Amino acid sequence: MNFSSKILEEAVNALATLPGVGKKSALRLALHLVQDTSRKSERIAAALLKLETDIKKCSICFNISDHDTCEICMIPSRNQNVICVVESARDVMAIEDTGQFKGRYHVLGGVISPLEGISPQDLYIDQLLSRIKTEGIEEIIMAVSPTIEGETTIYYISKLLKDSGVKVSIIARGVAFGGDLEYADELTLGRSITLRTPYDVQT
Amino acid sequence: MNFSSKILEEAVNALATLPGVGKKSALRLALHLVQDTSRKSERIAAALLKLETDIKKCSICFNISDHDTCEICMIPSRNQNVICVVESARDVMAIEDTGQFKGRYHVLGGVISPLEGISPQDLYIDQLLSRIKTEGIEEIIMAVSPTIEGETTIYYISKLLKDSGVKVSIIARGVAFGGDLEYADELTLGRSITLRTPYDVQT
Repeated sequence: MNFSSKILEEAVNALATLPGVGKKSALRLALHLVQDTSRKSERIAAALLKLETDIKKCSICFNISDHDTCEICMIPSRNQNVICVVESARDVMAIEDTGQFKGRYHVLGGVISPLEGISPQDLYIDQLLSRIKTEGIEEIIMAVSPTIEGETTIYYISKLLKDSGVKVSIIARGVAFGGDLEYADELTLGRSITLRTPYDVQT
Repeated sequence: MNFSSKILEEAVNALATLPGVGKKSALRLALHLVQDTSRKSERIAAALLKLETDIKKCSICFNISDHDTCEICMIPSRNQNVICVVESARDVMAIEDTGQFKGRYHVLGGVISPLEGISPQDLYIDQLLSRIKTEGIEEIIMAVSPTIEGETTIYYISKLLKDSGVKVSIIARGVAFGGDLEYADELTLGRSITLRTPYDVQT
C-alpha cells in the first residue's frame, strides 16, 4: 500500500496487530478515525491505555477485575461452596449472562495443551487446589471447552482431587437447543445418545 | 453482557464505535489486549492519538498528509498539468498502487449527494477551480465512483469547466479484468457494449 502519511501507516500497522484485523480493515478504521471530528481516536486511546494500566486479575478467582477482588467474589450472597472452573474471563461473562449459576468462579487462564507448550504449571491450578482446601468447597463444575485439551485439563484436575471428597462435575454436552439434528456433528450426536437423560413429563 | 470490570466495559464501548466492529468483536479485541503482555494497547493508543493530533490535509490537494503539503504534491517530477479528481484519500492510495498515474490529485472529500445533505459547497470544488486557474492545468481526470452521486459530481464540475478550455475525462468503465461476463451487472455489461473500443492487433 502506498501511504502518503507515515502517521497513517503507523496507525494502520498498530491496528493490524489486533486479531482478525487485516491491513485493509485497519486502513478503513484508521481513515474513519482521521475523518471523524468527534475526537473518537482520543476516547479509544484513553480506554485502551486504562485497559493496559488499570485492569487487574482478581486475587481469588483470577477473573478480570478493576479491584484486587472481583465483583463476583465480593458478593456474599453467592454460594461459597461451589466453584465453576473456566478457561477465561470471557467464559465467566458468558455463564453470568445465562443467570443460571450462583456460585463463584475460578479462571484457569487456559487449558493444558502440550502442543502449544501450556503445562499445568502455566495455569492457576495450584491456586484452585488451595482454594478448595481453605474455602470449604463442596463441588467444582468444570466448564471448559469439550476439546482434547479441555478433556485433558478436566482429567488432570479431577485426578488431583480424587481423594479430597470434593465433587467434580462437568457441564452437560449434547445437541444445542434450537439446532437442527442433521447439522450436529457425529461425535456430539453419538455422545448425546450415550449420555441420554430420563425424560420427566411435567404435570 | 455482564462485565465484571467497568474499565473493560468502557474499552468495549469505545472500540464498538468503530465501523464494522460490533459489541462481540469489540469484546474479543479488548480481552486480547488485556491478555497481551507486549504493551500492545499502549502502542495502539499512541498511534491513534497521533492520528488525532498530527495528521493534516494537504493545502494543495486535500489528501491526508503529515506536512502542510503532501508527499505527492511535493514531487517536482510529477506531471503538473494533469489532476486526478477523487472522492477520498483512500482513492489516492488505490490509484497510486496501480502505478499508472503520474500527475497530481485533488481530493474532493466526498461526492454531491442531496439525500445525505452533501452539497457542492461541502466539497473542495472551489479549491479545485482555483487550482485549475492558477496552476495551468490542461486536463482533469474524474476518478469518482460510477454511482448516481458520482455522476452528478462529474456533471456539476464539467459544467463549471465548460468554457475554461480544460479537458475533462472520466476513467474507463466496463467489465472488470478477470471477471466472468455472466456475473457482470446488466448496466455495466450494456454500457460496455455501447462504449466498446477499437481492438488493436499488436504486431
